[in-house]
Amino acid sequence: MVVPDLGPLLAEMRNAVIAHGGGPTAVLNASLAGVCAEWKGGRLLGARFGVRGVLAEDFVDLTAITEAQMWEAARMPGSVIGSSRHPLTDDDIQTMLCVFRAHDVDTFFYTGGNGTMETALRIAPYMQVIGIPKTIDNDLAETDHTPGYPSAARFFIHAVRYIGLDNVALPSPICIVEVLGRNTGWLAAATALSRTHPDDAPHLIYFPERRLSLDRIAVDVERVYRKLGRVIIAVCEGQLDDQGQPFGADVDRPDSVVHRLASNLGHTLAIALTRRLGLRARAEKPGLLGRSCAALASEVDREEAFAAGRAAVQAAEQGASGKMVTLLREGTGLVDLQRVARIERPVPDEWISNDGNDVAGDFRDFLAPLVGPLELMPSVEIW
Amino acid sequence: MVVPDLGPLLAEMRNAVIAHGGGPTAVLNASLAGVCAEWKGGRLLGARFGVRGVLAEDFVDLTAITEAQMWEAARMPGSVIGSSRHPLTDDDIQTMLCVFRAHDVDTFFYTGGNGTMETALRIAPYMQVIGIPKTIDNDLAETDHTPGYPSAARFFIHAVRYIGLDNVALPSPICIVEVLGRNTGWLAAATALSRTHPDDAPHLIYFPERRLSLDRIAVDVERVYRKLGRVIIAVCEGQLDDQGQPFGADVDRPDSVVHRLASNLGHTLAIALTRRLGLRARAEKPGLLGRSCAALASEVDREEAFAAGRAAVQAAEQGASGKMVTLLREGTGLVDLQRVARIERPVPDEWISNDGNDVAGDFRDFLAPLVGPLELMPSVEIW
Repeated sequence: MVVPDLGPLLAEMRNAVIAHGGGPTAVLNASLAGVCAEWKGGRLLGARFGVRGVLAEDFVDLTAITEAQMWEAARMPGSVIGSSRHPLTDDDIQTMLCVFRAHDVDTFFYTGGNGTMETALRIAPYMQVIGIPKTIDNDLAETDHTPGYPSAARFFIHAVRYIGLDNVALPSPICIVEVLGRNTGWLAAATALSRTHPDDAPHLIYFPERRLSLDRIAVDVERVYRKLGRVIIAVCEGQLDDQGQPFGADVDRPDSVVHRLASNLGHTLAIALTRRLGLRARAEKPGLLGRSCAALASEVDREEAFAAGRAAVQAAEQGASGKMVTLLREGTGLVDLQRVARIERPVPDEWISNDGNDVAGDFRDFLAPLVGPLELMPSVEIW
Repeated sequence: MVVPDLGPLLAEMRNAVIAHGGGPTAVLNASLAGVCAEWKGGRLLGARFGVRGVLAEDFVDLTAITEAQMWEAARMPGSVIGSSRHPLTDDDIQTMLCVFRAHDVDTFFYTGGNGTMETALRIAPYMQVIGIPKTIDNDLAETDHTPGYPSAARFFIHAVRYIGLDNVALPSPICIVEVLGRNTGWLAAATALSRTHPDDAPHLIYFPERRLSLDRIAVDVERVYRKLGRVIIAVCEGQLDDQGQPFGADVDRPDSVVHRLASNLGHTLAIALTRRLGLRARAEKPGLLGRSCAALASEVDREEAFAAGRAAVQAAEQGASGKMVTLLREGTGLVDLQRVARIERPVPDEWISNDGNDVAGDFRDFLAPLVGPLELMPSVEIW
């Protein structure tokens, strides 16, 4: 289909598609609301279930959604237009471009992490593409932080705090809290903010950035146990041992029928520590609740997610393309997609303690403003 | 030590000990606050870490705690005086009685579940004993419901709701939410209140009251999956299969080094279903967060826990002994300890559907007033 050149008229009547890639967050719908609120062009289509919706020409006309519906959605976890992890072949990309042309779509907004931004980069040579950052993992490069991360961080901060208060009252020798995060320890690091006293949980925080022997964990655990009689450990679902193995856990084993089965790393590690130390151990795994718990979401995060959506539309209006919106400490910026696609940002060395079992430097100062006020209650020393 | 009979003077100056047994709840401290608020006698001592504190004469003088401290504590999860699962020998009971005499203690308040009430019953022949109900499991007999249960219920209602909203957006074929509860399905049943539409999560709720074959679960899962493309299952940590085994999970195996290791039943079941059906499955296990998440606690529960504490003191003042406080639909009552000690109240048959995979009857009407207002947000059908 050939689109006639309508000049200035077309410029005002541009049509756009927005799609999401990867796992939802507690504030992904707020980014969608930001795009909708700022959109002043022609039709704004939401692709149902990410790029699958584009490939299937399955769109919802977001300009027909009422403002009330949109504001309601902006407070909900998940995604009101769905998302997808569908990997795209080159043929898929061509199909997407044909669909966009058939629907007179000039602009593609694509929300996601570094994998999503790689896809955005593949499409950018052919049309206007703006990436909107989104990942609880906080592992996108070139942005101070990522929408979705502060809310998941706020969840795990409270989860470890509450479990810690419970555990003071009826000490379990070892309690592992399995935190979301496959390759980076941003969410594990966040649990450092659970403490208001040095003896508060978590007593040990490990980082997938550092491989870790069971021997080493056992030494750490024994030291804390001797001092406090209880040990709460924050560890990522993707933590690997010194052999590069997940301690025997069922974690993303591509050769197995349980491929992409969610991790049981915490439980596996609990058994290993019980066998090694003869101490009872248990493991908790809030899992998907960590990225969806609206009750513990960060209002700052919600506002920033909304702002990121608005900034994407503003960038498109100004003719930008091949860019991703970034969050600065104040406001938003833009960065070339090349600088974020497939690039994973680890927790920097200066924010990991020398022993590799706690945060360091000014990490708390980085995170505290993003999670907003916490409801941690006092540390309990038993009366 | 012989206590002289001081008549009316002693009656006004009675001393008491309060101890907790078993796992904390989100509102256990509110019951303690209720006892403190109502107490008008002599010294009120809190036993640190349950009966261990009595045996070790390790007490905190609760009459020295400020009102501000007490009100702050009343909103905290865990227990500010600790708790214990220490099993008591007959010698222990004798030691406790000696300690009580040595400290001029006439009254023992003991907070806990049916195991705790059995201990209370063993002590009741020798001194004034009043039991205060407490268990997230809601499995105490003779009381309409149990302090702690509504808050844990409210947590799992929201957890399943949030995970369900996330899962609509990026469907995972099978997602198991492992709910607290070893022998009774009260908390699994509660997740029925997560739904505001028949297709909302959870799609299947199982009850430890009914043994369950993997075949049966697989048939249920396949049926839901064919209809919705996603299946969220609420199952208790203590669910047993038709052979009386926990599906191969590491659940309280007394013969094993991992004895009292927390359950991984959800994960084990996820692997079994993946192997059986060839569908990806994951499992989430909020675990201890379910009984400690202050952010999702029930205000009704907190008030009732406080009222139960007050009622225990009032009962003692009126000379009752060998009784446990009960919660009625309105107010409190008293029941003989014999009628609750070691007795486990299952979910009644009329509240379990014929298929054994959902609630039935007026269970929702029973639970709804106890959890108070919910923040469930709209059901999302993808726009």
